Amino acid sequence: MSSAAAASNGPYEELCQQLREVAVLSSCNAVLSWDEQTGMPAEGSAFRAEQVGMIAGLVHEKATHLRVGELLQELSQATTDEDSVVAANIREARRNYERSKKLPRRLVEELSKTTSLAQQAWIKARKDQDFPAFLPWLEKMVLLKREEAQVVGYGNGHPYDALLDEYEPGATAASIQEVFGALRPRLVDLIGRIQGASTKPGKEIVERHFPKAAQKVFAEAAARCIGFSFERGRLDESAHPFCSGVGPGDVRLTTRYLDHHFNSAFFGVLHEAGHGIYEQGLPEDQFGLGCGTACSLGVHESQSRLWENFVGRSMSFWNYFYPGAVQAFPNVLKEVSQDEFYQAINVVEPSFIRVEADEATYNLHIMLRFEIELKLISGELKPADLPSAWNSAFQRDFSIVPPNDAVGCMQDIHWSAGLFGYFPTYALGNLYAGMLFEAASRDLGELQAQFSRGEFLPLKEWLKEKVHQWGRRYTAPALIEKATGQKLTHEPLLRHLEAKYAAIYSL
Amino acid sequence: MSSAAAASNGPYEELCQQLREVAVLSSCNAVLSWDEQTGMPAEGSAFRAEQVGMIAGLVHEKATHLRVGELLQELSQATTDEDSVVAANIREARRNYERSKKLPRRLVEELSKTTSLAQQAWIKARKDQDFPAFLPWLEKMVLLKREEAQVVGYGNGHPYDALLDEYEPGATAASIQEVFGALRPRLVDLIGRIQGASTKPGKEIVERHFPKAAQKVFAEAAARCIGFSFERGRLDESAHPFCSGVGPGDVRLTTRYLDHHFNSAFFGVLHEAGHGIYEQGLPEDQFGLGCGTACSLGVHESQSRLWENFVGRSMSFWNYFYPGAVQAFPNVLKEVSQDEFYQAINVVEPSFIRVEADEATYNLHIMLRFEIELKLISGELKPADLPSAWNSAFQRDFSIVPPNDAVGCMQDIHWSAGLFGYFPTYALGNLYAGMLFEAASRDLGELQAQFSRGEFLPLKEWLKEKVHQWGRRYTAPALIEKATGQKLTHEPLLRHLEAKYAAIYSL
Repeated sequence: MSSAAAASNGPYEELCQQLREVAVLSSCNAVLSWDEQTGMPAEGSAFRAEQVGMIAGLVHEKATHLRVGELLQELSQATTDEDSVVAANIREARRNYERSKKLPRRLVEELSKTTSLAQQAWIKARKDQDFPAFLPWLEKMVLLKREEAQVVGYGNGHPYDALLDEYEPGATAASIQEVFGALRPRLVDLIGRIQGASTKPGKEIVERHFPKAAQKVFAEAAARCIGFSFERGRLDESAHPFCSGVGPGDVRLTTRYLDHHFNSAFFGVLHEAGHGIYEQGLPEDQFGLGCGTACSLGVHESQSRLWENFVGRSMSFWNYFYPGAVQAFPNVLKEVSQDEFYQAINVVEPSFIRVEADEATYNLHIMLRFEIELKLISGELKPADLPSAWNSAFQRDFSIVPPNDAVGCMQDIHWSAGLFGYFPTYALGNLYAGMLFEAASRDLGELQAQFSRGEFLPLKEWLKEKVHQWGRRYTAPALIEKATGQKLTHEPLLRHLEAKYAAIYSL
Repeated sequence: MSSAAAASNGPYEELCQQLREVAVLSSCNAVLSWDEQTGMPAEGSAFRAEQVGMIAGLVHEKATHLRVGELLQELSQATTDEDSVVAANIREARRNYERSKKLPRRLVEELSKTTSLAQQAWIKARKDQDFPAFLPWLEKMVLLKREEAQVVGYGNGHPYDALLDEYEPGATAASIQEVFGALRPRLVDLIGRIQGASTKPGKEIVERHFPKAAQKVFAEAAARCIGFSFERGRLDESAHPFCSGVGPGDVRLTTRYLDHHFNSAFFGVLHEAGHGIYEQGLPEDQFGLGCGTACSLGVHESQSRLWENFVGRSMSFWNYFYPGAVQAFPNVLKEVSQDEFYQAINVVEPSFIRVEADEATYNLHIMLRFEIELKLISGELKPADLPSAWNSAFQRDFSIVPPNDAVGCMQDIHWSAGLFGYFPTYALGNLYAGMLFEAASRDLGELQAQFSRGEFLPLKEWLKEKVHQWGRRYTAPALIEKATGQKLTHEPLLRHLEAKYAAIYSL
């Protein structure tokens, strides 16, 4: 349908058509990026950067087209019902348009190309434990993101606000500092009590040899069982696990299999499947519009963390899955009881890798990254000083120092991908997950009994009704309050952690 | 570099920049199509059609931009040396521009979308042996291609000429009919003598159980050994094998593994690797320009058929590879002699599937398709009547009738992909391959001895020097004449077939 034909239906329909075209074009880059991270030939990276740079430039051109501005102007009085689909779509369109308009195309294309090249450099540097090889890319990326913060603007706040707002609309460095400030002492106290406990379950069990092929089959079966559709998605391998919602009918997960660490791939897959179920639950007829887009990254992460931890690391989940696990990995599990296994997957201890961290220490990893990001973006910390800043903060928070940068400041893909301001949404996700899981337990009653019987659809449907189907119809705080009856609070998360570890560690 | 900046270097440089941008954008569709055929989730097909349709539209817009026309006008007297790189690039740019200008964007987008959807329908219909399910897509595709032929134009010739010219510049239905008319009786005579021979080697050996995993490893090793670079390419699985040159450093092959047919994947991989080696041998600094583009599909096919047949099905190739084959497939080959194996991979007999056909009958498969295509495009044959037309022609040429359409008229992807006019280039490829291999044998001397020692690089380098490095610098007939000293002739192919089968069948 051409824009001219759409216009005859009025400015709202024409705007929707324009936005859909932007989203279709943008989704081509989702495929290119997925491909880059899953299987592109090594020597294809320079050319891939050209491809994604060109698409990014065209997306930007389309998204900031004069006509979009005119339509938004025409639609400024379109509806008085602020809670309607139309109002939400116009609001989100305006938000995106205004942000995009501030970014010069040169910056957009440079960010896009640099992201592509820097990720390839990161993969290699991480493998070689060679931070100096990555440093020039990190420097370039920080410079570009600082420039982005300047052109987007941040009022009287912190330049970081301009970046954070992209992922968690409305959140600021100050609001995150407040949330983290309240959560941190409670977590530190809990972790302290766990470390002082006389009960000390070991995790040797999950570090036995789990053959990759069996891990793959088992993890895929679990993802399918909790409701991820493989007719409308797939699962591959990549250096850093992710979920990419390409478009209707096409949502892709990745993971990495470690032969000697069961948790990494299995809980990674549940985590990404949680993201994927959210993407698969968005209304397809709203693709490209606010109401067809996930609410915020914090809400997105609430879905992944909920399935990974509240479901996947629960005893009732393993009531159903443990017999299958023993069949899948007979050599390592045949003489292990379900209780021993449950404890092993839930051991709390300081560790280097965020994505493999336990539920209690995880948020400390996030707070550390947030603290460092703030300083990189303000200019207070130079990229060259990142390793030492990382290591000393790590020593302070976890009392251990990473033996190399690959398991230290280079472990995450985010900074090479230009995702500054992204990490705090992981911690928000944990808080939201706690709130949602408590509300779902209240609404659905016998949730744990359902899990024990392998029934995960009631929870999935509850999440679809309360979260997925709405897209960005409401802001994240409003959506969570509608779903749970509460404003943002860390109490449900802490109640969950207290109860869980009291049982495991006899606190 | 922006177009404005390029302009300061003069119109030729600006033209090159424009063409490169067209090629980069177009290469995004190469990735999307590769993905569609290798692993896209089943339910992603409708959305994928939207993506490729949009990219195709943008490519068309860029390729037919007013500025390209102006630059070509300015460059009409740019050089007097018709054999120069500059002249070739301008000639090819003009050729593409003039063809593209004739196609309305609506038709381009519709062809692109239909191609994407029709291929998905073809995959399913072929699997279900359900021609009626595919028929509406075939009808739509034939209609669109007939429209394309009309708008492109074909002088006093056949509408088919307009389509064929896209793949084999300068060739016409009449010129192909002349080539096929001369070749056919010679082939029929040879096949008749083979079928009447008292020596009858069987092919039971290659229909034993060859485990897929071992096939994969063995075929990849062979592709690497003949010179395909896996740092600059990859190999995957798809319903219909293909090679896609995405761009510099990224060339992709696919194959399909049949548990009970060694030839299918192995010779398929050598075939696609032949295409891939050509793509990898094109000059990267000419990407997007005539001199960075393969000469014609006939020349492209000469490379694949040369490596598949003249090299891969030769005794000397197996002098080197057979010990490895016995190691890779000990259960089925340990008591088979190299002679028996060589005969089994070279059995000549009527068969249903083109891509698995022997070297002697292969061209008859092509002639049958060419005959049918001509009638579909002229309108003489209705798509609904394709199965009966196919089956009766097959009875006439091979004395057997396909048991179902999946191994009959639905076996090839081409028509679902809109590739009418493509098949004849396969037969031209065989003729060119015969000419090139004879010339290489003359130039390099002890080619067979080299193969026996596992040395394939001298031949690869000869092909690069004579064919790959030139791109479209010369027309296909001129390039082949420069490389071989001869004008198009079927004699070398027939000499090769006569000598080979005289030995195997004691003719």
